[in-house]
Amino acid sequence: MSQPVIREANPDDIPAILHFIHELAVYEKLAHEVETTAQMVAETIFCDQPKAHCLICDMDGKAVGFAIYFYNYSTWRGQYGIYLEDLYVSPEYRGRGAGKALLIHIAGIAVANNCGRFEWSVLEWNTPSIEFYKALGAREMSDWRIYRVDGEELERLAGMTG
Amino acid sequence: MSQPVIREANPDDIPAILHFIHELAVYEKLAHEVETTAQMVAETIFCDQPKAHCLICDMDGKAVGFAIYFYNYSTWRGQYGIYLEDLYVSPEYRGRGAGKALLIHIAGIAVANNCGRFEWSVLEWNTPSIEFYKALGAREMSDWRIYRVDGEELERLAGMTG
Repeated sequence: MSQPVIREANPDDIPAILHFIHELAVYEKLAHEVETTAQMVAETIFCDQPKAHCLICDMDGKAVGFAIYFYNYSTWRGQYGIYLEDLYVSPEYRGRGAGKALLIHIAGIAVANNCGRFEWSVLEWNTPSIEFYKALGAREMSDWRIYRVDGEELERLAGMTG
Repeated sequence: MSQPVIREANPDDIPAILHFIHELAVYEKLAHEVETTAQMVAETIFCDQPKAHCLICDMDGKAVGFAIYFYNYSTWRGQYGIYLEDLYVSPEYRGRGAGKALLIHIAGIAVANNCGRFEWSVLEWNTPSIEFYKALGAREMSDWRIYRVDGEELERLAGMTG
């Protein structure tokens, strides 16, 4: 069996990317939240000067996993960082180094671009992933919680007056 | 007393930005983690095509608060979002709408740019901020935890082989 090969995604990968996005949401028990279409991926990832970037992991001559990341910022470091939005490997290819190869590749992009941090989020019940991440050197930022405004609440906030 | 006025930061604001970054870290009891210099801010916020953006809140003719944000990405929406990295208002100007004005302004940027989400992180013990955010329509993404690799661990991960 072949070793994982990491490469930048191109528009021909859009069907595979949509497949991975959906499969990851199924795994996270949140598939009902996926609204993404091929056109949306084309317009956000494969546009001029995209703010989000996609890597593909090929094995046995086909795409078996992906990662989507963007640059974030640390005001305490005065540096950009990298935030991993999605990481997914097809079940039949797990345990063969695809996920690790994707994380190593992105860590290399971070170091090459003077990024001081590489971060992502994980569901607190997802113990297999958490153990995998810890084994690669990641630690939980346990004091922090994420807050979100979206949908009608976002429209409402945007329309408020001070 | 004047109403808060929100504007884009410019390089003349760098001393105020550094002051706000440091004051926020003191409030968060993490001041020892701040390594940021004026040059770092200049090179990351006031460079060509910056990935992070800074807003200033003026009151009584001076900068009394700031916000730093960047664009993130939702694979489930196929849309960019906005992530608020820092929000700070000088203590003597709190309770006069500066923080709310900054959040409203960024929510407006999100809506204008077809961003489906506006997110940030807060320390779990920071009840005053959490109550403030909830009152503006934000909700805690309570199932999610942030993981991070940085420093020597990041270098080590980047240097691994699959």
